[in-house]
Amino acid sequence: MIEWFDDLALGMRFKTADKLVTREDIKRFASEFDPQPYHIDETAAERTPLKGLAASGWHTAAIAMRLIVDARPLGPHPLLGAGVDDLRWFAPVRPGDVIHLEGEVIELTPSKTKPQGIARIKWTAFNQHGDPVYTVTPIGLVPRRPSG
Amino acid sequence: MIEWFDDLALGMRFKTADKLVTREDIKRFASEFDPQPYHIDETAAERTPLKGLAASGWHTAAIAMRLIVDARPLGPHPLLGAGVDDLRWFAPVRPGDVIHLEGEVIELTPSKTKPQGIARIKWTAFNQHGDPVYTVTPIGLVPRRPSG
Repeated sequence: MIEWFDDLALGMRFKTADKLVTREDIKRFASEFDPQPYHIDETAAERTPLKGLAASGWHTAAIAMRLIVDARPLGPHPLLGAGVDDLRWFAPVRPGDVIHLEGEVIELTPSKTKPQGIARIKWTAFNQHGDPVYTVTPIGLVPRRPSG
Repeated sequence: MIEWFDDLALGMRFKTADKLVTREDIKRFASEFDPQPYHIDETAAERTPLKGLAASGWHTAAIAMRLIVDARPLGPHPLLGAGVDDLRWFAPVRPGDVIHLEGEVIELTPSKTKPQGIARIKWTAFNQHGDPVYTVTPIGLVPRRPSG
């Protein structure tokens, strides 16, 4: 089982479960955090560059976090990040879309001073058509296996 | 009033309103999107590197989006982004914290092919003590002023 920084290897891959994104989910999140026409009003959304209702990008990011947490890529350890790089939204997430993520370990840097390392897993979210809709590469802080 | 890409200038600054982040907000968001001990369980959170309950970083990001949307930095135009760079969480956001953001235009790149430009506004969120807790630099797509 993958549990510690020492258990990770470059090229290692992960896959999350699926998540259905509903119209109600999209409007509820957006009403609280991103109340713009793309995300709360079908008619107004038709006249925007997104050409129809779509999830807030921050909603997609939050759904991705939940799927990654549930996939437990580090076994029993919770995930802790200092930030993320290369966050991009490639395509709208529509009502009824089913999203999952796939991840690949692209960089592993042990700390020189602390019993931990920085693991970079590049995650990409795909919809049910196989189209990439979102990517993010967190700066993950992962403890090293205790010695002895 | 700032409305079009052409109205923006390097160094221009923005400031949002304040937002109180409650214990209930933190637990509700985390229960749906980031159910880890840092964000849902005071006792367990004490034993983590965050040393107490703190908002999910994605919750902070979503609150920041709402504050920026409400600040209407582009007047009547909705905000549209292809992604963000340099997203970092500097310090925990605690129950009872009051957050606001300040933004500065750091890069303006007109499109050579479309009537729009890419505006990069570096946003930083501060708590009520003046400590920076979060920063993000969206890749904002902003329409140019129609000619004629």
